Amino acid sequence: VVEANDADRLRELIGALHPKTGRARVVGLTGPPGVGKSTLVNSLVGELCARGRTVAVLAVDPSSPFTGGALLGDRIRMQAHSGNPGVFIRSMASRGRLGGLSAVTAQALTVVDAAGFDDVIVETVGVGQSEVEIATLADTTVVVLAPGLGDGVQAAKAGVLEVADVFVVNKADQPGAGKTVAELRGTLAPSTGSAGIESWVVPIIRTVGVRPTGVAELADAIDTHERHLDVSGDRMRRVRARALHAIREISLDQVRRTIERFEDDSDSALGELADGVAARVLDPYVAADKLIEALGMGASSER
Amino acid sequence: VVEANDADRLRELIGALHPKTGRARVVGLTGPPGVGKSTLVNSLVGELCARGRTVAVLAVDPSSPFTGGALLGDRIRMQAHSGNPGVFIRSMASRGRLGGLSAVTAQALTVVDAAGFDDVIVETVGVGQSEVEIATLADTTVVVLAPGLGDGVQAAKAGVLEVADVFVVNKADQPGAGKTVAELRGTLAPSTGSAGIESWVVPIIRTVGVRPTGVAELADAIDTHERHLDVSGDRMRRVRARALHAIREISLDQVRRTIERFEDDSDSALGELADGVAARVLDPYVAADKLIEALGMGASSER
Repeated sequence: VVEANDADRLRELIGALHPKTGRARVVGLTGPPGVGKSTLVNSLVGELCARGRTVAVLAVDPSSPFTGGALLGDRIRMQAHSGNPGVFIRSMASRGRLGGLSAVTAQALTVVDAAGFDDVIVETVGVGQSEVEIATLADTTVVVLAPGLGDGVQAAKAGVLEVADVFVVNKADQPGAGKTVAELRGTLAPSTGSAGIESWVVPIIRTVGVRPTGVAELADAIDTHERHLDVSGDRMRRVRARALHAIREISLDQVRRTIERFEDDSDSALGELADGVAARVLDPYVAADKLIEALGMGASSER
Repeated sequence: VVEANDADRLRELIGALHPKTGRARVVGLTGPPGVGKSTLVNSLVGELCARGRTVAVLAVDPSSPFTGGALLGDRIRMQAHSGNPGVFIRSMASRGRLGGLSAVTAQALTVVDAAGFDDVIVETVGVGQSEVEIATLADTTVVVLAPGLGDGVQAAKAGVLEVADVFVVNKADQPGAGKTVAELRGTLAPSTGSAGIESWVVPIIRTVGVRPTGVAELADAIDTHERHLDVSGDRMRRVRARALHAIREISLDQVRRTIERFEDDSDSALGELADGVAARVLDPYVAADKLIEALGMGASSER
């Protein structure tokens, strides 16, 4: 139902499942292409299972069909964990979806959370806005880098530093791993926790996803961060921010659908507005004002 | 003003410039990373200038700061055309922008169109939705591929075939170029123009962007497609679709800003809705309905 993106069935589904959610621990894992995210997630799933936890993996590919990375990684992982009923792995494309990555991910999260998985790992390649969207949905966001990415750390600064709860330097057995760790450490701002609230120092974990080494330390760091969320009160803030995000995105999706129905209706006021904008006699902002006014009246007259 | 994304100044700017737009020919150019788009655009700019046209290039990078490709390509091109007043080149990041690539591109297009450039080339790497968004804004969409991309043509099928008005196989002097052309030709559906309307057969142009070869043919193909737009009536349809797109996206942006103001206001009804969703006593779809109702009433009472 989530993948089919049928608005009416989604509403029914989310309505039925939402009361059963809120139990799963949601770990977001992101990073640039080529750092070994799929292999690392595969090893992390093994570690979490060994600790007696059930795990769902949602691999969301925000990229176009030009790159099929997530699907390949998915197949590799499926083999490793096939037959384990405590593991569920699903690759999803968010391309072309209204609301993009966060909409499809939030809905899929609702499903696996309600299904009772202890942990949900949301994996996505860090392109576009994806790492920021993942951080909105996750309790703990893990940002994965690797040595040899050129100016990877510098380039990653702007978007990623503020969303990372845990850093991983994967492929830590390769030359340059120490340098990457040192660069990361240099970019971490000194923690600025409020007085009386325990502040979080973003740890930097070295892993080798294929061996695997460091994966137990990664699982420990995620545990530690989860405890921090409760102690600091951050969990309540994140749960509320996620609720706001869900309400906002669903509302915008509804408004978008309403506008698109207007577009399909040749008798609608929108057609006349479009003609005016196309003929350059109407400014698109003024047309948008008129459309919103029409929507506002439409919304109240329906009730 | 466009890059600063200040809503009030943008409204004023677009309002002032919109009446002066509609003259420029807008060419969208997209394709996967590594096919040589920047070099090809550089050569195409040279060709168009030699034909006496003024050219603006908008290189829009939808990717995260993880990859800085567009900016590098920009620097290379700036050198080649620096000092030519008939050429304007600007790289823009769309990451983190409300409305993403299409919002910032549509606004920048308005500016360079009103400034009187004959041609505007909008270049973007084909990730996420970008090629579809570019096609919405462009008169002619050029999709660039290159040999040696593995299953590039197959992978590109889903998103790209339907948006391409012109295909380019760049790096046509490299092994496998003939195979790429043949694969592309195989994927092109037989044209299905309505009776009496000239149908468009998507040409496949071979280019070597660095030399350059085939770039005059590419410029010719763009000219031919522009004439087709007028003959077939497609231009009117595209101009109207673009007006609808602009009105819809500006409206959604306004609604998003209104909701975000609600989020910042702790006394707003939205806070209570978020608490209900966070506590799992309220389904996010029902909360969204209530928010839209509140917005509808808010919108009418403001007027």
